[in-house]
Amino acid sequence: MTDAPLPPGSMIGILGGGQLGRMLSVAASRLGLKSHVFNDTPDAPAFQVAARTSVGDYDDLDAVARFAEQVDVVTCEFENVPAATLEAAGAAAPVFPPVKSFEIAQDRLNEKDFVSGLGIPVAPYANIETLADLKESILRIPPPALLKTRRFGYDGKGQTRILTLCSAESAWEAIGEAPAILEGMVTFEREISVVTVRGRDGTVRFYDVVENVHKDGILDTSQVPANVTTALGAEARAIAGKIAGALGHVGVVTVEMFQTGGAEPALAVNEIAPRVHNSGHWTLDACLISQFENHIRAICGWELGDVSRHSDAVMTNLIGSDVEDWRKYAAEPGTAVHLYGKAEARPGRKMGHINRVSPKT
Amino acid sequence: MTDAPLPPGSMIGILGGGQLGRMLSVAASRLGLKSHVFNDTPDAPAFQVAARTSVGDYDDLDAVARFAEQVDVVTCEFENVPAATLEAAGAAAPVFPPVKSFEIAQDRLNEKDFVSGLGIPVAPYANIETLADLKESILRIPPPALLKTRRFGYDGKGQTRILTLCSAESAWEAIGEAPAILEGMVTFEREISVVTVRGRDGTVRFYDVVENVHKDGILDTSQVPANVTTALGAEARAIAGKIAGALGHVGVVTVEMFQTGGAEPALAVNEIAPRVHNSGHWTLDACLISQFENHIRAICGWELGDVSRHSDAVMTNLIGSDVEDWRKYAAEPGTAVHLYGKAEARPGRKMGHINRVSPKT
Repeated sequence: MTDAPLPPGSMIGILGGGQLGRMLSVAASRLGLKSHVFNDTPDAPAFQVAARTSVGDYDDLDAVARFAEQVDVVTCEFENVPAATLEAAGAAAPVFPPVKSFEIAQDRLNEKDFVSGLGIPVAPYANIETLADLKESILRIPPPALLKTRRFGYDGKGQTRILTLCSAESAWEAIGEAPAILEGMVTFEREISVVTVRGRDGTVRFYDVVENVHKDGILDTSQVPANVTTALGAEARAIAGKIAGALGHVGVVTVEMFQTGGAEPALAVNEIAPRVHNSGHWTLDACLISQFENHIRAICGWELGDVSRHSDAVMTNLIGSDVEDWRKYAAEPGTAVHLYGKAEARPGRKMGHINRVSPKT
Repeated sequence: MTDAPLPPGSMIGILGGGQLGRMLSVAASRLGLKSHVFNDTPDAPAFQVAARTSVGDYDDLDAVARFAEQVDVVTCEFENVPAATLEAAGAAAPVFPPVKSFEIAQDRLNEKDFVSGLGIPVAPYANIETLADLKESILRIPPPALLKTRRFGYDGKGQTRILTLCSAESAWEAIGEAPAILEGMVTFEREISVVTVRGRDGTVRFYDVVENVHKDGILDTSQVPANVTTALGAEARAIAGKIAGALGHVGVVTVEMFQTGGAEPALAVNEIAPRVHNSGHWTLDACLISQFENHIRAICGWELGDVSRHSDAVMTNLIGSDVEDWRKYAAEPGTAVHLYGKAEARPGRKMGHINRVSPKT
């Protein structure tokens, strides 16, 4: 791996061809870079905007290796990439973010241990390997609590609520008796996130703190500026920076946090996403350089782009049939519509988003 | 042709795969639309971001027809599309802008007649079919003057200066004795342009007036806001709107004008470009909805997007070897770099542009 930046004309390999891969590919094109997208199905949204495409299973290591041999750097649009896949890709091309970021973010126990090991508050949690573990831990972390599988959870999947001491068994069954963590439910004022980018040279930049509202376990809206004090915003950035640095991360990493504590606000980290993130989609229309371009810049060893915000923004996801209202949104003043090129609007599926933008307050 | 807008998932056919086709294709992707790009060589910048590509000569009418049969609408990145090509495409799919816009803009005599026929000032001009015409007209439109071929001129090509009454013969030779116009050189304070978009329903929107500086016959910088009075800006928009309406144009049309007259400023139209335009590239970073997206919206029958400007901007073209400084530009705060994915930086070739953006004054 060289320290020289990848020049324009280089080929970016993207594992994952969903909307994040699509927006990464478009961002790469702005910089004169080409994209080769690898996806496990042929109907990938990112295929519509990529110079090259490959279809293969993520655990078909020969296919992954062939893909990686054709590109100058490999990155991922999702964190649940199997370790063997990353290794196969890494044998042929540099892979960013680094393996450590995946190891931490793929596993909720690793993630909690890592964050609390940095002295950063998290919700109370316990490692659950057996029903006995759960029955014991539930006394220490009483209901309401969440039981979450250690791996492969997103958008509220792989988790269940525990509301009474008696429901340990049904909860254990609900998550398929998989290795899990028990997590105390945090009473919070708001959810925020910090979309952070770290360059190959260790430079870190932060987009403005975002305030997020979830609905049915899926992000509904993200708003900037967040309704937080200057001090809390600074603390949120400090936490995100500490995490990015400790991971040795390269690219965008998004840290989700809860604001707790009422009159004396405090922060607890909820989740680390080692990638461009839904709560950063507003950067496409309210910043000069989007999270997608900054991720590409970082993994290519370019100088990071300007993260300053020129406008206020509210991002709203278009989930499932929401997308049927595209004409209404397209006609709204101050609104940018982003659609992902997915053919079928299944319930719960992210079909697009809109950014409602207004002059900076 | 139906009045219903083309829904997300539709295929946009783009004749021409240069940087304009590339940025149109990217803009289409934002709206969930796919692009099929037709180009006469396989190394087209737009091919890197298109869902489908076709290589063929523009006058291979069978190839053009096959292309048009696979798309839901056809548009063009350049104005010099042969009439037979537009006809072949139009037999299979709706074509926007309409044929009239091409007929006027492809031919400098038609253009001058059309604009002056609307009562809009232009530079003094004369139709030149023979050397005798030139020798006669040069007495009425004395040097310094420009002799321009009626067709296929761009970026200062197909034209020559006439500085003395004696140089008629050499000038006539220089432009290849092709049908031409003689045009009086206008003494101007500044060059401006109005990037205008007109929808299928006749709605017209104007981006803010741009001030342009050319170098060696090629656009060097475009700046917004232009240094013009409110009244002159309004007049410029009125002229652009009159032209867009009289053409029955659909899509973006850019009208270049000279500001003349010193203390009592007046406007004269220099050129009509029936397409997205280099002097509108700043809209990518200083407006919510760029000229490229608004062109796509217009040809698809969507509501036009918000053309308001959130920032001041100076666009600078990267011509030929200018692009070698990409690292320097990428590191500049407040600067967005756009590179076109062209392999070879030949002299005079547009390789990219940068937008330097600052808070709105």
